[in-house]
Amino acid sequence: MIKVGINGYGTIGKRVADAVSKQDDMEIVGVTKTRPTWEAKNAIKAGYKLFCGIPDNVNNFKEAGIELAGDINDLLGQCDIMIDCSPKKIGAENLEKYYKPQGIKAIYQGAVKHDAIGESFNAQSNYDSAKGKQNVRVVSCNTTGLSRVLGALDKAYGVKKARVVLVRRASDPGSSKSGPVDGIVPNPITVPSHHGPDVLTVLPKLNIVTSAFKVSSTFMHAHSLMIELDKEVSAEEVKELFKKTPRLLMVNSSEGLTSTAELMEFARDFGRPRYDMYENLVWEDSIGVEGNELYFFQAVPQESIVIPENIDCIRAMCSDVSAEESMEKTNKTLGIK
Amino acid sequence: MIKVGINGYGTIGKRVADAVSKQDDMEIVGVTKTRPTWEAKNAIKAGYKLFCGIPDNVNNFKEAGIELAGDINDLLGQCDIMIDCSPKKIGAENLEKYYKPQGIKAIYQGAVKHDAIGESFNAQSNYDSAKGKQNVRVVSCNTTGLSRVLGALDKAYGVKKARVVLVRRASDPGSSKSGPVDGIVPNPITVPSHHGPDVLTVLPKLNIVTSAFKVSSTFMHAHSLMIELDKEVSAEEVKELFKKTPRLLMVNSSEGLTSTAELMEFARDFGRPRYDMYENLVWEDSIGVEGNELYFFQAVPQESIVIPENIDCIRAMCSDVSAEESMEKTNKTLGIK
Repeated sequence: MIKVGINGYGTIGKRVADAVSKQDDMEIVGVTKTRPTWEAKNAIKAGYKLFCGIPDNVNNFKEAGIELAGDINDLLGQCDIMIDCSPKKIGAENLEKYYKPQGIKAIYQGAVKHDAIGESFNAQSNYDSAKGKQNVRVVSCNTTGLSRVLGALDKAYGVKKARVVLVRRASDPGSSKSGPVDGIVPNPITVPSHHGPDVLTVLPKLNIVTSAFKVSSTFMHAHSLMIELDKEVSAEEVKELFKKTPRLLMVNSSEGLTSTAELMEFARDFGRPRYDMYENLVWEDSIGVEGNELYFFQAVPQESIVIPENIDCIRAMCSDVSAEESMEKTNKTLGIK
Repeated sequence: MIKVGINGYGTIGKRVADAVSKQDDMEIVGVTKTRPTWEAKNAIKAGYKLFCGIPDNVNNFKEAGIELAGDINDLLGQCDIMIDCSPKKIGAENLEKYYKPQGIKAIYQGAVKHDAIGESFNAQSNYDSAKGKQNVRVVSCNTTGLSRVLGALDKAYGVKKARVVLVRRASDPGSSKSGPVDGIVPNPITVPSHHGPDVLTVLPKLNIVTSAFKVSSTFMHAHSLMIELDKEVSAEEVKELFKKTPRLLMVNSSEGLTSTAELMEFARDFGRPRYDMYENLVWEDSIGVEGNELYFFQAVPQESIVIPENIDCIRAMCSDVSAEESMEKTNKTLGIK
């Protein structure tokens, strides 16, 4: 059994914890929160041992009547690997402060820069590279979504040049922090954006250029992809390829799935916890080909698409299970076809 | 004096009426409304003669206490040219119902299809083609914005292939009709979208592919442009070209103009009526070049960018004023540098 700790029981952390709990070759030792929020209380209700993520904050939890199993240092001593799900770039600080001094393996999320960790991960692209590594970063939701489709297309036909425009949601559904409320934000303002180079951390030979907007939406990111291929293929061939590609789900606007709003209602009826989707949602009726250039739209569920990748990354770093075997196991336990 | 009638005193019509009033070679004979709305009352307050756009609706105006100068048939008899600013594709019906039977020249807006009119117009691209024509369509806001920059780039360097992703506002600021409120809508779902072919109605030789999303915003459309040029140029050269191109305004995110929201506040301080902008707003600090490919973002003010084009189109159809002379006159009267 691989003993797993979660540092940061928030948007990503709580989802990874639940997904780890469904695996028969790993177990959750405990999770951390830095403040005594409702999510801290929920972690205990969910049956997880709660540790204080900042040792100095232990008294805040006592005052709030929340029982701790210790602080982060106590948790570190009991784990084979920590999944760092702390916000923004704090994971890079935790590497220096906790994981490196304690000699413990750790997985980081996409907001931490590749250069701070040295190894980036996408199960379909480079599972084996994570073997034997102490520190690995699971790439961001957008990069995961891009790596899945571009990796499959590059393998099947060769990608000459991929051009992608990302339309990013402004905020997660459960957060009231960020905008815009009414506006379209080129973000970053420079073109190309950093998203293209981030794909190169898992698919290093790809020729890709990206730009990105942030818009008034909460549900999912959406991508417009324009991909020059090395050879001419038909839209039908691409649809067949995507149907065989793991962790892609084809949807149709002709069935009423016309936007990310309808996709989220579709997800709510899908029946998974927190109406999560682990797949890229590719609009089948958007797939078009002109000469050797392929066009389509996809949606990327920002809160949940990286969850299966975190599970596979744990196995890549802490076991000798193969990529195929791990992905199959992860897919089966999470209900991914 | 060119005698001008406005059919439809709404979002576009009232702006064209005010712009025509500023020209010394044309005058407004009257404007139409189909229903006795607040805008109908405002037309009279603004000093325009009001005609009923649907003859059967005359009594509705009487009941609302709004004085009419007649119905649309009365207006047609007094004009050299009608500017059709009716919503959606109604202009094509008006062509058959009113303008063709009366033998009167007419200008249509971008929502009317090119094939229904046969001639499309953008002042910088094809002013002279409108000469002698009975019916001409001023292309849509997005197509106007694209034609200005792509026309200038094609003339200066040659455009090998332009790829553009449009992020469209869901609704005008003064309308509560359409959504999404929280969602990203691939619209149309098919790629390429119709926007590329629409640019070809004024720049027929261009190689262009477009796709489009609709998002929760009201202020402006935004475009991400990825343009392969026939030769390598520097970002500085492109900036110099754009500074010389008429009806483009360069803005900088480094000065705080980071999104369409800030651009609209900028427009409100600019001092024009209804805080209109007639220019493409190109983010100077987004302009980037890699090899022979140019990247940048621009914003397109959907309510007002076509106003100067309507004025120039009137002159192209009803006078022997040259393109350069007309654009200079229009720019001067509307305060465009």
